[in-house]
Amino acid sequence: EEEEDGEEEARFMAPPVSGLPELRRRRRELRSRMELLIMETQAEVCRALAELDPGAAFAVDTWERKEGGGGISCVLQDGEVFEKAGVNVSVVFGLLSEEAARQMRSRGKSLRAKDGKLPFCAMGVSSVIHPKNPHVPTMHFNYRYFEIEEADGTKQWWFGGGTDLTPTYLNEEDAVHFHKTLKEACDKHDLKLYPKFKKWCDDYFYIEHRGERRGIGGIFFDDMDSPSKEEVFQFVKSCAKAVVPCYIPIVKKHCRDSFTPEEKLWQQLRRGRYVEFNLVYDRGTKFGLLTPGSRIESILMSLPLTARWEYMHTPPKSSKEAEILEVLRNPKDWVH
Amino acid sequence: EEEEDGEEEARFMAPPVSGLPELRRRRRELRSRMELLIMETQAEVCRALAELDPGAAFAVDTWERKEGGGGISCVLQDGEVFEKAGVNVSVVFGLLSEEAARQMRSRGKSLRAKDGKLPFCAMGVSSVIHPKNPHVPTMHFNYRYFEIEEADGTKQWWFGGGTDLTPTYLNEEDAVHFHKTLKEACDKHDLKLYPKFKKWCDDYFYIEHRGERRGIGGIFFDDMDSPSKEEVFQFVKSCAKAVVPCYIPIVKKHCRDSFTPEEKLWQQLRRGRYVEFNLVYDRGTKFGLLTPGSRIESILMSLPLTARWEYMHTPPKSSKEAEILEVLRNPKDWVH
Repeated sequence: EEEEDGEEEARFMAPPVSGLPELRRRRRELRSRMELLIMETQAEVCRALAELDPGAAFAVDTWERKEGGGGISCVLQDGEVFEKAGVNVSVVFGLLSEEAARQMRSRGKSLRAKDGKLPFCAMGVSSVIHPKNPHVPTMHFNYRYFEIEEADGTKQWWFGGGTDLTPTYLNEEDAVHFHKTLKEACDKHDLKLYPKFKKWCDDYFYIEHRGERRGIGGIFFDDMDSPSKEEVFQFVKSCAKAVVPCYIPIVKKHCRDSFTPEEKLWQQLRRGRYVEFNLVYDRGTKFGLLTPGSRIESILMSLPLTARWEYMHTPPKSSKEAEILEVLRNPKDWVH
Repeated sequence: EEEEDGEEEARFMAPPVSGLPELRRRRRELRSRMELLIMETQAEVCRALAELDPGAAFAVDTWERKEGGGGISCVLQDGEVFEKAGVNVSVVFGLLSEEAARQMRSRGKSLRAKDGKLPFCAMGVSSVIHPKNPHVPTMHFNYRYFEIEEADGTKQWWFGGGTDLTPTYLNEEDAVHFHKTLKEACDKHDLKLYPKFKKWCDDYFYIEHRGERRGIGGIFFDDMDSPSKEEVFQFVKSCAKAVVPCYIPIVKKHCRDSFTPEEKLWQQLRRGRYVEFNLVYDRGTKFGLLTPGSRIESILMSLPLTARWEYMHTPPKSSKEAEILEVLRNPKDWVH
């Protein structure tokens, strides 16, 4: 039985014999170009963070997954500028149960499995950056690619991802810069993308039991498989390249801002909400926690170093705290 | 349509006409005796906490649920001895969907609904006490009673509950005292109860993605509906009366212990695990968050004031931190 598994995996690693040689080459090429993109993105973001927080050291861990594949986690903790910043890449493959494959795909397309198992490959880069200063927002991004091979050898593939911002206090200028940079990345490909993915982001990062979004959004998309693999890849590449320009200028601008103990406290309460979203709602986290052989430390890297929950905390009307809450309850359009 | 709902609720509040008058009286009586017990338990525990932390003030909130019923939340925050301690009682009633009724009952018995709706009544007392000093453990308890009326007027009822301890550091003497006090409460009713409910507790408070239990356990039970309503009530009463004697002596013993910043840090990391369990696994929390009209602040009262997540934190071998982890990974029998 083990040998059979091995064979299936080997067959998956090489393209199916049915494809034309040229098509096969291109397919393989795209997979390695995506792998390159996620590695480059990790390196770029880590370089930018290290430059801003030169005293802090990155812990770099390479890990392997028993079932196939592995990843590299880079985590900076308790720095001068960043409280906790993690950038994680992973490329994993193996066999999925039909149930797990269905869960992976948000639209739940039917998949024809051979003997109930589906060879798959999943790769992605994901990151959460929690700064120390309450005037510097938290940022999250994730870009990922999936392939699943069906019984007849055809492959289903799709991309997903997004970048979103979670400020403790609202700064309109920063919000506009962040959204504008993302919009420009989207607009190069299709003018419909930014409005669609901006809304998807507001809908996805919703903490239902609080009636609040996690942050002021950005873009989010999943299951993207058109117009073509090449075009979606180019779009994902533009988004990944926009991560540093949309966020790093905001960090530079505010990381030396002075702040009060009350502002730090409000940040900690907002960090508590971040934890609530990630543990209660986030599909990626939930999927990760339930997947045997997944690396818990890399999944929960997204949690802040510290968080706080106060019973019945309500900021006074017209305060800076109430201002951000208003935007989290009623998302705004930042660019037109 | 609204009038019909009102009628159904009224029918539920009064016992069904089919019951014998004497049976009806006893039933109603038991419900009010349970209501009394949960109120008394809240008062007893709050009194004990206030005595230990005389400088700290309890916030007392009375709340009503639009759909029927309400509760009283007592929360002490940022005291000298307690970081956050909440004791909550609620008595709620109304109409449940068949789906919600199924979820409420862990064994998932079939329920015959009238027009898809089931009149129900749920009452309980629940509490989480997070002390400041890392040598004083966190304690949680919850005792609850449910009634659901089926289409033909018959009522299903059951009790649930438990008391469990979450120390930052292991103190064997305290662990034995805690479990022994609970065992004595159980043994008065049936010698089989403690071993069964001790194991249930270890199984329930399991953080699967960590391979650790939340704490060193205690007792936990659900869906308890035999041998008789009166006998189960007497058992629940013994458990509720054991809360103060099983926990308060431990607080008194250690609340003045000296501790190091490293010990405080380990406590904060364990608080992070507490949050993980409550948000990812706890059935009560999940059910609460999904129930329309439930009071979020009372549900999330269980979260600690502060928590911490460090990437790849592993205590050194043979340390006090490794000692408690060992017990969380492999639960022990504390009393025989």
